[in-house]
Amino acid sequence: MGLIRDNGVVYKPVDEVDLGINSDQIYLHADVKGPSSNGWSDCQTIRVVSGDEADRQHFAIFSEEEQSNSEDDNSITLSHSCHSFEEGYTHLVTYGVMEESPLYVPLHAYEDFEEEEVKRLCPNLSPAEQVQHAINCLEPSDTTLQDSYAGFRRWKILDYSRAYASGKITPLMVAEQLISAVEQSCGSGMDMSFFISHDARDILRQATQSTLRYQRGEPISVLDGVPIAVKDEIDCMPYPTTGGSKWLHKVRPCKEDACCVQRLRSCGAILVGKTNMHELGAGTSGINPHYGTSRNPYNPKRISGGSSSGSAAVVCAGLCPAALGVDGGGSVRMPAALCGVVGFKPSFGRIPHSGVLPLNWTVGMVGVLAGTVEDSLIIYAAISGQPEPHQSTVPRLKLPILKHSNMSSIRLAKSDEWFNDCSDDIRACCSKALASLHKLYGWETVEVTIPDIEAMRLAHYVTIGSECTSSIAHHLEKKGRSESGSDVRVALSIYGSFDSREYLNAQRIRTRQMRFHEKIFSMADVIVSPMVGVTAYEIKDDAKDTGELDYVNGAALVRYSIAGNFLGLPAVTVPVGYDRLGLPIGIQFIGKPWSEAKLIQIAYAMEALCEAEYKKPQVFYDLLGKC
Amino acid sequence: MGLIRDNGVVYKPVDEVDLGINSDQIYLHADVKGPSSNGWSDCQTIRVVSGDEADRQHFAIFSEEEQSNSEDDNSITLSHSCHSFEEGYTHLVTYGVMEESPLYVPLHAYEDFEEEEVKRLCPNLSPAEQVQHAINCLEPSDTTLQDSYAGFRRWKILDYSRAYASGKITPLMVAEQLISAVEQSCGSGMDMSFFISHDARDILRQATQSTLRYQRGEPISVLDGVPIAVKDEIDCMPYPTTGGSKWLHKVRPCKEDACCVQRLRSCGAILVGKTNMHELGAGTSGINPHYGTSRNPYNPKRISGGSSSGSAAVVCAGLCPAALGVDGGGSVRMPAALCGVVGFKPSFGRIPHSGVLPLNWTVGMVGVLAGTVEDSLIIYAAISGQPEPHQSTVPRLKLPILKHSNMSSIRLAKSDEWFNDCSDDIRACCSKALASLHKLYGWETVEVTIPDIEAMRLAHYVTIGSECTSSIAHHLEKKGRSESGSDVRVALSIYGSFDSREYLNAQRIRTRQMRFHEKIFSMADVIVSPMVGVTAYEIKDDAKDTGELDYVNGAALVRYSIAGNFLGLPAVTVPVGYDRLGLPIGIQFIGKPWSEAKLIQIAYAMEALCEAEYKKPQVFYDLLGKC
Repeated sequence: MGLIRDNGVVYKPVDEVDLGINSDQIYLHADVKGPSSNGWSDCQTIRVVSGDEADRQHFAIFSEEEQSNSEDDNSITLSHSCHSFEEGYTHLVTYGVMEESPLYVPLHAYEDFEEEEVKRLCPNLSPAEQVQHAINCLEPSDTTLQDSYAGFRRWKILDYSRAYASGKITPLMVAEQLISAVEQSCGSGMDMSFFISHDARDILRQATQSTLRYQRGEPISVLDGVPIAVKDEIDCMPYPTTGGSKWLHKVRPCKEDACCVQRLRSCGAILVGKTNMHELGAGTSGINPHYGTSRNPYNPKRISGGSSSGSAAVVCAGLCPAALGVDGGGSVRMPAALCGVVGFKPSFGRIPHSGVLPLNWTVGMVGVLAGTVEDSLIIYAAISGQPEPHQSTVPRLKLPILKHSNMSSIRLAKSDEWFNDCSDDIRACCSKALASLHKLYGWETVEVTIPDIEAMRLAHYVTIGSECTSSIAHHLEKKGRSESGSDVRVALSIYGSFDSREYLNAQRIRTRQMRFHEKIFSMADVIVSPMVGVTAYEIKDDAKDTGELDYVNGAALVRYSIAGNFLGLPAVTVPVGYDRLGLPIGIQFIGKPWSEAKLIQIAYAMEALCEAEYKKPQVFYDLLGKC
Repeated sequence: MGLIRDNGVVYKPVDEVDLGINSDQIYLHADVKGPSSNGWSDCQTIRVVSGDEADRQHFAIFSEEEQSNSEDDNSITLSHSCHSFEEGYTHLVTYGVMEESPLYVPLHAYEDFEEEEVKRLCPNLSPAEQVQHAINCLEPSDTTLQDSYAGFRRWKILDYSRAYASGKITPLMVAEQLISAVEQSCGSGMDMSFFISHDARDILRQATQSTLRYQRGEPISVLDGVPIAVKDEIDCMPYPTTGGSKWLHKVRPCKEDACCVQRLRSCGAILVGKTNMHELGAGTSGINPHYGTSRNPYNPKRISGGSSSGSAAVVCAGLCPAALGVDGGGSVRMPAALCGVVGFKPSFGRIPHSGVLPLNWTVGMVGVLAGTVEDSLIIYAAISGQPEPHQSTVPRLKLPILKHSNMSSIRLAKSDEWFNDCSDDIRACCSKALASLHKLYGWETVEVTIPDIEAMRLAHYVTIGSECTSSIAHHLEKKGRSESGSDVRVALSIYGSFDSREYLNAQRIRTRQMRFHEKIFSMADVIVSPMVGVTAYEIKDDAKDTGELDYVNGAALVRYSIAGNFLGLPAVTVPVGYDRLGLPIGIQFIGKPWSEAKLIQIAYAMEALCEAEYKKPQVFYDLLGKC
């Protein structure tokens, strides 16, 4: 406990507090001045009953030591404000500023169930070693299949890796192509707004180092020299982490790579910049009034979805085989579906969250956007695992052995009304994909009812909103709100309006849904649904400058996302076709906790049935082909 | 999801919901009618920004099926209220009624550390078997010590058990003495108000059965025939569970014994009634305008403390060797200290909570009040253990082997300013007790600083208040508030005033304190403090009818309690002396998670140094002596 700034105590981080006898911590005597009365006759009691916030409790706070580290005109020290002032409560709790997250997260109990066709990894492997294990899980490249390729196909991580290994193409050549493509996409004619920041010199520096490693015959992993983009909600040096806002990076400087970024870097990947996103992740369209709107490469007049807009768009457009996103309410999976790429969000706790903006604590998780399921697996292998594997709360990482033949039998839970609550084209396309799974693999559909889906969506909204408020309100009160787009200003106002009863009722709905889903997973292996209720909609001209409030399309976009976040379940979306306008459609599979391996196997089987029909986006950069 | 009553959906319990295809659950389409706009020009946007709660979001909820189970004029079914009404949000979240608790509790990670002088129990033992293990852990009765007994001594569980086994005294004789004593204590001359309800016929019925068991030579355990009282916050047949209120039992009927009560019953204990408590546990004095104020047997003009007032008073007055309480903010330990008995609250999760009023979810825990540490151990053994021991989150039960010699070396953490923030008599008495531990056992004091104690108290208050509101607000809105005492009306008003940011900030303070305490437990085995800041204060005449608001004394009473509840740590208080008015003083030891065995050993050592000076209360019933 230390300074009081803007009405709130600024708490020292726990690790910086001396707990010894010579600590500078002040012991506050709780000399409560508040209501001490008997019966109704006392007017002070009545005032408290009236619920006037200023009267809730009155405290006198005394400090016995002086503090002298005030450097900010806007701040007062505890000792300066001492000797009985009201609202100690307000200082200590309501407006208290601290870096610690709340105590509780939706971490599922460790359950290390038996699975077929998986490779169980030892703890303490390096990211590069985990990537090598992923490569060993891949099906040997089948040239027959490759030749028969009728549809469109993006370059995969292994395409890059083999091209580099052959010596014909270098990471530096790819980096130069990429920089030129990004510059072209930013041009006034295209205005794709993929990135919030990218630094050509930093990209070339990494590419040069990777090129030298290949020249020495010492690539670190198959990711060496492969361009990967990072959502601007995740710390990645040397860039600021804006969260799509104009102000957050000013109050929270980026000081080091997030854990997941550091792991990719340690595998040799080239981190090519910070992708655009919906401001503060507080929306699903990706329309950003500050950094432009990430346009959908399949139709640049349309949204790419959000909030990981740019990460979906760059993968779609061929700039990277994979990108990192953060999924707090479908924010990886939604834009992946709208852009026709794979979106994969593991169980809560599987990927370390350190270095991700603390916009919420219990629903947001790092996820992978990739052109193929295979590449999702490789990136997943690179970034998974808790930094302290002795934490027994997270089961050991298992990687799926991918093969198209001999897929074990799968039961798919389907809740009809929910499944069908989408556009006709999406319904038809996802139903057809499901039918082909039945036909070709003999998989079984189990008809189920998932109760209270709408209540879950609202409870999730209360949760993410309340957590966002608790996390960033102390910044917002100073400057953030006035610098935000209109849609985010509205969202933040709603976020800050929830009372503690609503938050707790939302957590009770969460308990119910946890138990409903447990029961459903006793009947089926995965839940299947469309990924979104509508395909990419048009960007309205007036929205581009001010942000957008479209709760109708927003609700249709998040309709199928919530269980993945609110319940911490792993989920994946795979492209399965296009609507009559040629816009991508994705199907979703939601797995039980820690069942990522099975989920990837299922996604791989689904992809195999659809990839022959994949279409090329209007905006596409053939980086390898051009080298 | 089903009826809407009083503005909120009444959710079916999870286990009653059919998840199959013929479920009666209604799928709500989220046809959001709310703000769909771009830019600031739209007045609807501005209205939302204004924060008017009614405008937060508008939803249209359609139901496709009829429901016909409305039996209540005050209720409407979803279908009747359908086709676009505002505030679906309000129905589904804010005022939703459900029995499930929120997702998260302060359950510490399983840590089954090595300990000396403990007996490790297998899972799946019966309560009676666990009690027998506890008996095997006791020091053989030392007659020399018994004879040298200068001070006052209450009858222990083993005294009852041996008396019954000898055949000279029967449980029925004790039950008759007890009934007569309780009736005497209720008389107008005494007005002790120990119990909210007790049923002489039910007590005699149990005593008769126990007597027959002894006559057959088949007592179930040492608890057979031993009178035990239960706080009226815990379900115990055939009594209603009032929670000290006039209304809660009307809306929540008691249908079966709580798990802990059922376990005591299975050991043969005689459950002698429901003890008085502070209304809804929302205060610390035990002054109850509805059921009278449990008076302190050491001085009946003074409070017994709260909220487990009657449980402390009946043990103090010799009516039972032990009683159950619930400790949400010191509610077991505070009254125990004020009444000169032992109060023991195990780690969160150690004792099943089922059948306890859900006044909160994350801070309240069942605890034991007993005349001796030995009896605390026996009751602890009887009621501990999760019903499903496969839950690996709770480590196996370990019982301490009690002995006065060869106590292993203990490091006691002491935070001076906090320790000293109490009356002169308490400070002197607890310091003397601590000094005697150093002198006789050679234990070491480690001077530490525990930061932010006052912030923790306030954060705990926000937590317990918010959880109480979420739990009982739907009852309160109908009838509860108008039937409550003035102090509770004020408390409930404050409880309902917290917003979700405050609740979450409180949980962040909780995280900080968890880490601070972890660090302190790396420096010391236990934390030592006085149990309360003041001894039992006088009951004011006008308070008896209306309840009492005394935040000054209240803050002094809870000063040392909070870590035990907010952080789920085990804690115990032992009587160590008396103030100049002859009122009891207790010391407290707070242990690290799951360290109950060590804590009981320490309490046993402390008791041995003080019990020679124990004094007899003004009101005391010598049940065994009178038989």
